[in-house]
Amino acid sequence: MELTQRQREIITIVKAEQPISGDKIAQHLKLTRPTLRNDLSILTMTGILDAKPKVGYFYSGQHLNPLTFETIYEVPVETLMLTPILIKPTTTVQDAITSLFMNDVGSLYVADDDQHLVGVISRKDLLRASLIKQDLTTIVAAVIMTRMPNIVTITATTRLLDAGYLLLKHQVDTLPVLDKAGVVVGKVTKTKLLDYFINAGAKVDQEKYH
Amino acid sequence: MELTQRQREIITIVKAEQPISGDKIAQHLKLTRPTLRNDLSILTMTGILDAKPKVGYFYSGQHLNPLTFETIYEVPVETLMLTPILIKPTTTVQDAITSLFMNDVGSLYVADDDQHLVGVISRKDLLRASLIKQDLTTIVAAVIMTRMPNIVTITATTRLLDAGYLLLKHQVDTLPVLDKAGVVVGKVTKTKLLDYFINAGAKVDQEKYH
Repeated sequence: MELTQRQREIITIVKAEQPISGDKIAQHLKLTRPTLRNDLSILTMTGILDAKPKVGYFYSGQHLNPLTFETIYEVPVETLMLTPILIKPTTTVQDAITSLFMNDVGSLYVADDDQHLVGVISRKDLLRASLIKQDLTTIVAAVIMTRMPNIVTITATTRLLDAGYLLLKHQVDTLPVLDKAGVVVGKVTKTKLLDYFINAGAKVDQEKYH
Repeated sequence: MELTQRQREIITIVKAEQPISGDKIAQHLKLTRPTLRNDLSILTMTGILDAKPKVGYFYSGQHLNPLTFETIYEVPVETLMLTPILIKPTTTVQDAITSLFMNDVGSLYVADDDQHLVGVISRKDLLRASLIKQDLTTIVAAVIMTRMPNIVTITATTRLLDAGYLLLKHQVDTLPVLDKAGVVVGKVTKTKLLDYFINAGAKVDQEKYH
């Protein structure tokens, strides 16, 4: 649901002067009370405003509507991207596995000395490599990594919805966030996106039941 | 936003008889047109109904409100759980890894002959096991699995929000869904939950931009 300009103005007025009567809100807006009736009724029915008889309107303290498409799905990934663990192309697979466990992550990014992304190594890649009957201290990251340009990457302005869609479509657990020069600036993971959706729901859950 | 009983009735009527005038809707409900004005205005402003001048009301084809807390987060996991890959406690780690790759899954459930859950093996468990300098054909699943009662499980009626919360809190990729007897009836994974949230958003995205 999209709020109108006037509905947004009403919310601003109520936030500033609560509790406030419908007549006072109308005065602020230089409108008549009946003109506002529909807007006030929508704002209270959606739970954005609370109305107490003989007291007036309150701002409910809820987000304007925490579950609108715009606030949930159109957010740029910049707001939630994480810092990836970077390794070098010459890091051994043995050290890469250690790094994965030490940092408790699901993937490692392989970057050159200027932090340009050159590859990605997932837990699955490492498991596959570990099946090879060869000493893991003698194989380097560059040999087993998925390499550019075969990596799906995004930018800081990619919408959260599109990032999620790419993760699922390409069946990967992580998406490197690159700047225009190809330098790694962050990562978006399945876990982080799920965390985001669950937190958005948990807020409403709290408001609703607690 | 929660729809009232009357608003839900209006939607049912419009779905069945669209296009339909406000007067006709009022007749159905044995109410006067002015009584319905507020409800109709809320239903059109929220985009649930479309109103065309001189034609009447249409059902917009959108879900009642695809992004309400109730329709997104309070759904029981039953509606989206997947069928897990089951192995036996005596399956070798080598065969478990093969099964993981063959079925393209992130975890395997270890069950007894009556399908009671006895353990879970993740990609991470297998990677850890593969680091041991020992022949993987000689180690069995029971040795490396996380075992009951140290496994977080849910039931078919667990809310999606709670399943997501448990996945994140316990840092696992999968939650076995068990019946009262401890028999495996399904699984919920991070990937499946993310898929669910992204699909819910993608529907709105389609309606909005296409």
